Amino acid sequence: MQKSKNISEATIKRLPRYYRYLKELEQQNIERVSSEKLALLLSITASKVRQDFCTFGAFGMQGYGYDVTNLRKEIGAILGLDKEYNVIIIGAGNIGKALYRYSGFSDEGFRIKAIFDIDVENNSFKNKANLLHIDELNNYLYEHPVDIAVICTQKEMVVDLCNKLKECGITSVWNFAPIDVVIPGMVIENINMSESLFLLSYRMNNNK
Amino acid sequence: MQKSKNISEATIKRLPRYYRYLKELEQQNIERVSSEKLALLLSITASKVRQDFCTFGAFGMQGYGYDVTNLRKEIGAILGLDKEYNVIIIGAGNIGKALYRYSGFSDEGFRIKAIFDIDVENNSFKNKANLLHIDELNNYLYEHPVDIAVICTQKEMVVDLCNKLKECGITSVWNFAPIDVVIPGMVIENINMSESLFLLSYRMNNNK
Repeated sequence: MQKSKNISEATIKRLPRYYRYLKELEQQNIERVSSEKLALLLSITASKVRQDFCTFGAFGMQGYGYDVTNLRKEIGAILGLDKEYNVIIIGAGNIGKALYRYSGFSDEGFRIKAIFDIDVENNSFKNKANLLHIDELNNYLYEHPVDIAVICTQKEMVVDLCNKLKECGITSVWNFAPIDVVIPGMVIENINMSESLFLLSYRMNNNK
Repeated sequence: MQKSKNISEATIKRLPRYYRYLKELEQQNIERVSSEKLALLLSITASKVRQDFCTFGAFGMQGYGYDVTNLRKEIGAILGLDKEYNVIIIGAGNIGKALYRYSGFSDEGFRIKAIFDIDVENNSFKNKANLLHIDELNNYLYEHPVDIAVICTQKEMVVDLCNKLKECGITSVWNFAPIDVVIPGMVIENINMSESLFLLSYRMNNNK
């Protein structure tokens, strides 16, 4: 399989969902899946599914469908899920703790190595996890390889933190603070949960 | 302003982001905004922005732009954010607690009334919040008006919970468990955080 440089943004955004569904099918020991079945799961058309997979050279067979494991692996490789990543979490509040505890990330190669907070003494994670004081962040980054920083702090701290991370060579950030951050030379994925709540509100009011 | 029935799915998905940006501009006391500026914030074209707003009858003035407050209110009304909602959270783990504590939701009219868990005695929220045992859910729903249930439980419980909620007349669910649930007659917004992490992984490997 060839990594195409011409995958559209819309297709890219669907890849994680394809990956997840294919993984679920794999866990159910389902070996083959049709574009129609995947289309139904993603609420798009079957021709859109076939078009998506054509972009990176995966072709199903008429009346036979796609090989679930192969397709899952191909999409995983495009998403970079065939590698391992060292991850740190900054902010040991409820969100930070939930992410630290969620085993689903390490299953995909995201290894959470440490969690930082401004208050270590009074945190329930003390002695339970590799909880470090935020003042130790620089030293830690100097001594350990880190690929991704997950930010779960107050939104006022995010820009400064990102700049500090960039100085230390960490350019990939998963941001849970409710502020969209764009910094040249960094890859920042902002999660904004209220957007999903607003969509729920729209749909319950418009019944769609 | 007229609520159009013909708003496309792509436009609908952009509405929460428009709303959020307009709110930020409002907080900065900015009264006018151009389609170009909004386009930049959303990484789409200015003509797409104008097209989106035309759909529901909001028109900017050439060289003058859109009135920030009016536009924010119009989009808010389309999203149903001009109303109040009674919300319960099911699952008082880290995610449930984070949502309970986040003030951003009540600012938009989502009033969190109670939080349920299978274990009340050993939960740090005991005596801090309206924490109730899950066995009290039926009675609670019988006695209190609830518009939205937020599910933050293990994924194995979600389908049963949704069916129980539906029986009690609650048809709107915000689901944080890592499983996509579709139930006829219910509006379920599934948040799947790993999808966002996979996109980050794609972008850091493809530099886009």
